[in-house]
This record gives sequence, structure tokens and C-alpha cells, in this order.
Amino acid sequence: MLEQLKEQVYEANMLLPKHHLVTFTWGNVSGIDREKGLFVIKPSGVEYDAMKPSDMVVVDLDGKRVEGDLNPSSDTETHRIFYQKFPNIGGVVHTHSRWATLFAQAGRGVRAYGTTHADYYYGEIPCTRDMTEEEIKSAYEYNTGVVAVERFEKAHLNPDHIPAVLVKNHGPFCWGKDPFDAVHNAVVLEEVAMMAFHTEMLTPGVQAIQQTLLDKHFLRKHGANAYYGQKK
Amino acid sequence: MLEQLKEQVYEANMLLPKHHLVTFTWGNVSGIDREKGLFVIKPSGVEYDAMKPSDMVVVDLDGKRVEGDLNPSSDTETHRIFYQKFPNIGGVVHTHSRWATLFAQAGRGVRAYGTTHADYYYGEIPCTRDMTEEEIKSAYEYNTGVVAVERFEKAHLNPDHIPAVLVKNHGPFCWGKDPFDAVHNAVVLEEVAMMAFHTEMLTPGVQAIQQTLLDKHFLRKHGANAYYGQKK
Amino acid sequence: MLEQLKEQVYEANMLLPKHHLVTFTWGNVSGIDREKGLFVIKPSGVEYDAMKPSDMVVVDLDGKRVEGDLNPSSDTETHRIFYQKFPNIGGVVHTHSRWATLFAQAGRGVRAYGTTHADYYYGEIPCTRDMTEEEIKSAYEYNTGVVAVERFEKAHLNPDHIPAVLVKNHGPFCWGKDPFDAVHNAVVLEEVAMMAFHTEMLTPGVQAIQQTLLDKHFLRKHGANAYYGQKK
Amino acid sequence: MLEQLKEQVYEANMLLPKHHLVTFTWGNVSGIDREKGLFVIKPSGVEYDAMKPSDMVVVDLDGKRVEGDLNPSSDTETHRIFYQKFPNIGGVVHTHSRWATLFAQAGRGVRAYGTTHADYYYGEIPCTRDMTEEEIKSAYEYNTGVVAVERFEKAHLNPDHIPAVLVKNHGPFCWGKDPFDAVHNAVVLEEVAMMAFHTEMLTPGVQAIQQTLLDKHFLRKHGANAYYGQKK
Repeated sequence: MLEQLKEQVYEANMLLPKHHLVTFTWGNVSGIDREKGLFVIKPSGVEYDAMKPSDMVVVDLDGKRVEGDLNPSSDTETHRIFYQKFPNIGGVVHTHSRWATLFAQAGRGVRAYGTTHADYYYGEIPCTRDMTEEEIKSAYEYNTGVVAVERFEKAHLNPDHIPAVLVKNHGPFCWGKDPFDAVHNAVVLEEVAMMAFHTEMLTPGVQAIQQTLLDKHFLRKHGANAYYGQKK
Repeated sequence: MLEQLKEQVYEANMLLPKHHLVTFTWGNVSGIDREKGLFVIKPSGVEYDAMKPSDMVVVDLDGKRVEGDLNPSSDTETHRIFYQKFPNIGGVVHTHSRWATLFAQAGRGVRAYGTTHADYYYGEIPCTRDMTEEEIKSAYEYNTGVVAVERFEKAHLNPDHIPAVLVKNHGPFCWGKDPFDAVHNAVVLEEVAMMAFHTEMLTPGVQAIQQTLLDKHFLRKHGANAYYGQKK
Repeated sequence: MLEQLKEQVYEANMLLPKHHLVTFTWGNVSGIDREKGLFVIKPSGVEYDAMKPSDMVVVDLDGKRVEGDLNPSSDTETHRIFYQKFPNIGGVVHTHSRWATLFAQAGRGVRAYGTTHADYYYGEIPCTRDMTEEEIKSAYEYNTGVVAVERFEKAHLNPDHIPAVLVKNHGPFCWGKDPFDAVHNAVVLEEVAMMAFHTEMLTPGVQAIQQTLLDKHFLRKHGANAYYGQKK
Repeated sequence: MLEQLKEQVYEANMLLPKHHLVTFTWGNVSGIDREKGLFVIKPSGVEYDAMKPSDMVVVDLDGKRVEGDLNPSSDTETHRIFYQKFPNIGGVVHTHSRWATLFAQAGRGVRAYGTTHADYYYGEIPCTRDMTEEEIKSAYEYNTGVVAVERFEKAHLNPDHIPAVLVKNHGPFCWGKDPFDAVHNAVVLEEVAMMAFHTEMLTPGVQAIQQTLLDKHFLRKHGANAYYGQKK
């Protein structure tokens, strides 16, 4: 069942240690088959070295495990909300990568200071609000996703243009058109977070990148008028 | 004598360079056989590359070497106190890992700012007080352990919930249910110390993680109601 | 056509991941044949792992692709201006290397604080001004080069003595007598930027290196009286 | 001539890239044969990958090349002064390692904040004064050593107890009983400099390690009463 997607999700998960985004098992990638309404996700607490494609767990959009012997990632409910609310995404990744996580711990979004950021994220990568006691005590992982989506909706942010969120005191969730794209965005997030931190230290009160330059870089790589790379 | 434990302690020691927690010989791991009342520890000043399982030294809880040709780690007396005072632990590790050590040098505990911390440590990882002249001049290594344990007792901290201490101007000691678990906690400590440092730089006066979220994360991985991973 | 130069440019490009100067495809090196008035550059958006010498693209000094099936780097127009305006250079490199890029994001040049800097750069590595809306909206990549060259001309800086510029909110461009020398300078820039950042944090208001020492180090490695290395 | 020492000096030089202390050729190690009054040093500007033991250059204590086809390191005159003035040392190393160098750039010594420092350096690692115009313009490399030695003499520092100096706006020189010991001390310096920087950032105005603890750690590893390691 969904063997190709399982293989992809497995491979995308294995990119996390390769890109130094995870310590131990602190990360997970999923991918969705939109036609079938099923997504595939890493099992919970399994070491990367020991993991096989067949360990991937298939879950439906109601959160029910459809196939797999292992428990799905404890963050499965959060992934599920992103798939429900962000209809164009095909993959989701969660890590505790150092620089993105420490912005989340500081309750801070990652502002756009340069074209590295603008090439992938069309503006600040937002950080969520504190969760309420109630949200934490009941259906915590589900509510984590709810609060993240709320952050986008309230500020009218487009998840296709800003493919990541920092969950306060927790860490980043990123997404993309497929699992590999989601991991790609997670790598970029770590780079730009590291640089944003030091940019602010070097020039306190530094201004964000000017809007025209943000537009230029994002739009030369995304959308109808993109001209970067080997487009046909 | 205790061949299996020696093998484990050897392997756990070898994880220290693998996880970049030690430079040269600046670290040591031990493990205890509670039934026999004996613990096994790395020899003093031996290079990791040259070390064999049979080099491990067996010591009793009075601090007497029971087996082994080499001198045990100079920190043996400190390990011994932890085994005596913290009855549930099965392994101890000491390193001079950079981020944890610099918190110790700054006389600072590592506050809990995020769920990465909360998944392993149920609150701030404490730093000890200055040792007195007397404590340093006589039975220094023993007193290092005494002062660390005092830090837990005076503040009513539970060593099973906070499996590490920073010895002021020195560095971290971590523990766990066995030698591997102790090393695991040492890796986590390094991660959360690095992130705590930058969290504080990014948002001076930043608040610690809210108590409900700390509870949620610690308790979903520890204790009777844990649900993370592949529990049976 | 220009097979040897293509091979060199390919090899110089492959040094970027080796020296940890690029993530994904975020960098490009070019080299020029001054007699023929043609330069060779990396294709746009091609993964380093998949790239071959024959993928390199040949461009003339009017910016016209002369040979190659792939699109040249999106930064080709910027490279072209450097070759036009700086007549002694033989290679150009652009990266988003972390430390150099974050100085560019902070709108800051990299000041000369030590002999490491002075051995390669004869003074501060400058940062450009903001580009105007007009410069960004039309012929952006060309204007990027124009603004960089303007920075040198207005301040009477010698590009042979300061072989790099930081493009504000973007990142570094470096050059040299050939593609390898350009990459060499890019590695040095990253080192001195990292050290300059921390030098300023450690001693706020720190003075730049004294002029006599700057002279000594730059001139013992460059020009008629150089005596470093194995000169004949 | 001095084949064994050449082999040792070669091997000690090769440890510099292994321990990430050098970029390109920015480092050099030497070792002395006190009986013969000759020292062996790395040639100037030769790549580590291409270097052989037979490339090492033999120099006498008047600074005359006694054997070798290549020019000795441009820092040879500085090494020579250390051998002349510090009679117990057998090896010298110079690098531009990042953390030590940036302290030198900031004009700052590395204070002793912890036992990692105290295990190897018996107090602050000093930074030299500015060199005068005259000192830089004539016999610069010789005067670099003179100024470094002056720093020890004026403050009555013992080079056997503090085996390193930071040359202002330049970088570290370390020494030891032989070339390997010198490199060992250079690795330690980089560790303690990194930690000292962040210790100061974390707790501005932080106190140095208390004297009794500094004594305890230095003296348990050095001198007549040492008990660390496998002493016979």
C-alpha cells in the first residue's frame, strides 16, 4: 500500500541526519497521497539507523492508522492538521534543529534580512502564540497544529509562500509540495535562522530586507514569471 | 568479572567522541551492578583510540579498586557519591562538553526554555555552589560529588527527573538508568545548553517554558502515563 | 571550446561544497579567457553532485551565451560586470556563505582586525549601498554588479588589493587572478568575517589593526617585495 | 640529519588540520634538539597535503638555515626567540585558529574560568601589547617573539606553567615539552577560548576561577605531586 510514497517518506526522513537537522530521533517527515486521502509518516521513537521503508505508517485524514505495525510519530496529529488546512502541500517535516528551535524558544519569528531568505520564504517565518492550559491538556498534538494554522489565518499569511512555522517553546514545522521539498525548506530555515540571529547581534535594530528586493528574489524563483534554474 | 558491564561501559565511553562530547581524554563513563555493589569505570588519562573493554576498572562503593591494572578515572570518587546517594541510577558520565561547561563556568544553571529540554529534564538543570577552600584541599573529587548531591537535596530536586548537574567552574555530570542512558542525557544537555544560551541572547529576560507544557512533554515520555515511542 | 578553462571552473565550483561555503546550489564560480574575451560559468540551479565539466556555459562579455545547452547562472550578469570593470581579475565567485552573508544582511563591511585579514585583504571589505527600486526592477543582476563596482570607484578602492565585496542584503562576491584564487579568497572571507563578528562582541568599539601592521602583512605576501612562501 | 625530529615535526604539523586548527597553510610547528642547538620547522607556504618529512627545514639558534631546500616558515624567527628565552620547551606551534585569534584581535587575554583551563594553563593566557612602528618595520618576525617574551618577563609569568601567548592582532603561539605537546596545548587553547568568550557573554563581569581550584587542577596534573593519569 502506497509503497512508492513510503519509500519517498523514508528517504526524506533519512535526509534529516544527513543535513544535521536531528539529534537521535527528534524529527519526522510525512508525505500525502491527496487522491487517496492518506498520508505516510515515520514511526514514533525509532532510530534512523534501524529504520526501513516498510516501517512507515499509513494514516488517514481522520487520524486513524490504516496500515503499519508501529505507532506513528507522536506528532502525527499535527501533521494531519497541516494537510487538512493547507490544501496544496504534499509533505511536512518537524525537527528540533538548533537555530530554528531557539527562535521558537525565544518566542520570535525569523525576519527576512536577506535574499537567501527571500529565495524561499516570502516574508517573516512566524512564531505561534502560547497555547492555553486547556489546549495543552487535551489533544495537545492536534491543538499544536490548530494554533499554527490559526497563526497563518489571523495574519492572512499564505502557507504556499511561507512554508514553515515556529511553534512557541517547541520548534519548527516546515512543508512543501512533497516530502523532499519540505526537508529542503527545513534546511533553508536553519540557515536563515542562524544568519538572522547574528545579523541582529551585529546591527541591533537592523531593518528587514526592502520589499522590492524581497519581491524580486521570491518571484524570480516562484510563480509564473520565475526564471531561475533550468525551466523549460 | 563483570565482563558484560565492562563491555557496556567501554562502548558508552566510545560514544563520547562519536557525539563530539570530548576532546582528548576529557570524559569518563561508569556503570554499576547494584546487586554486587560494584561499579566499572574508565581508566584515568587513557586515549579513546587505545582503550579496550579489559582496561575498565572495577571499584566498590567504598572507593576501593577491586580489579584492573590501571588507575581508575580521577573522577571516580565523584561517580561513587552519585551511586550512593541516587539509588535508581545505573550509569554516570562526566565530560567537558563545550556548552554545558561554559554554563558551569558562568555559574549558571540551564533553564528550561523548550520542549527539547522538557522531554528529558523536568526543569532547570542546576549549577552547584562554590566549593570551600577546605572542600577543595581535602578529598576534592569526593567533595565534588557531595556538593552536587547537596544541590539536589537542598532544593528538593529529584535526580530521576533531572539527570544532570553542572559543577561550578568545572563541567557537567549526567546520569541515567544505565551507562548508555547517561550518555544520551549528556548529548541532550549539550543541545539544550547551546539553545538556552542563544535563546537568552535573542530575547533578554525571556520566560522559561510554561509549567503545563513542561509537564506535558516530560510526562508523555516518562512515568506511568507515557505514550511516546513504541511502548508495549 | 575552452575545454581547459571549463575543467578549471568545474573544479573550482566543486571546491565550494568542500570548503562548506554552499548549501544546495547557492554558489557559482566563473573564469575568463581574456584573450578571447569569453568567460565560463556554472549553469543555473544544477546540483553539485550531478554537475560535469561539459555543463559549464560559455558567455561573451556582452552577456550572450556562446556555447552550452543549459542556462548560465542567474548571477552571470553580475560576474560579467566584474570582468569588464576589473581588468586584472581572472575568476569570480559568489556564495551565500554564512558569516559573510550575515555581514551583508547587517549592511556592514568586514573591518580588518588582524593579520589573517591583512594577509589577503588590504583593508575593510566593503558593503554596498541599498539598490534603488528602479535598479532592482530592471536588469537586477546587471545592476548588482554596477552597484558593487560603484562602491569601489567612489571610495577609490583597488579591487586587486581588496578582492571581495558584500552586496547588501544579499551576500559576497569574491574574485582573484583565476577561479581557484577567487575561491581561496572566499574561504578567507568566511574566516575573517566569523572572527570579526566575535572580535566586536568581545571588545565593543575595538580598533582596527594598526596601519603599519596591515601594510607589513599585506606587502610581505603581495607585490614586488613579497617574501612569504617559496618565491624564486 | 635529525631524521627522527623531522618525522616528529612533520607529524605534529599534520595534526593541525586534523584538529581543525588551520585553514590552508596558516600554521606551523617546530621542534628542537637542545643538545645540537638546532630546530626543525615546516617550510613556508607549503600545502599540508603535499608536504613530506624531508621537506622540513633545519635551522640553528642564530636563525641560519642549516639544511633543507625550501625556505623555512616565515615565522621561524619568532620560534627561534621562544627557544632561546624559554629553556625548557621542546616544541612551538603557531596557528590562526579561530577562537584564540579573535581574542588576539580583541586585544584580550583568555581568562581562566574553569578547570579545563586550569588543567593546562596556570592562569590567564596573556595577550601582548601593540608593536611599535619600528618593531614592525625592522625584523618584524623576530620582534614578534621579543614582544611575546617581554609579556612574560614583565609580568613574571612562567612559560612552563602558561604555555601560550596571544600576539595582538595576530594569533596564538603555543609551546610544550615537544612538538606534540605544543599542538596539544594549541587544541586546549582553542577550547578554552571558545568557552571563555561565551562565559563572558552569559554572565557579564563573571569572576575568574577561584585560586584554590586553579591550584588544585593544575597541580594534580603537573609537578611533583601530580596524580592524574597512569603515573608510575
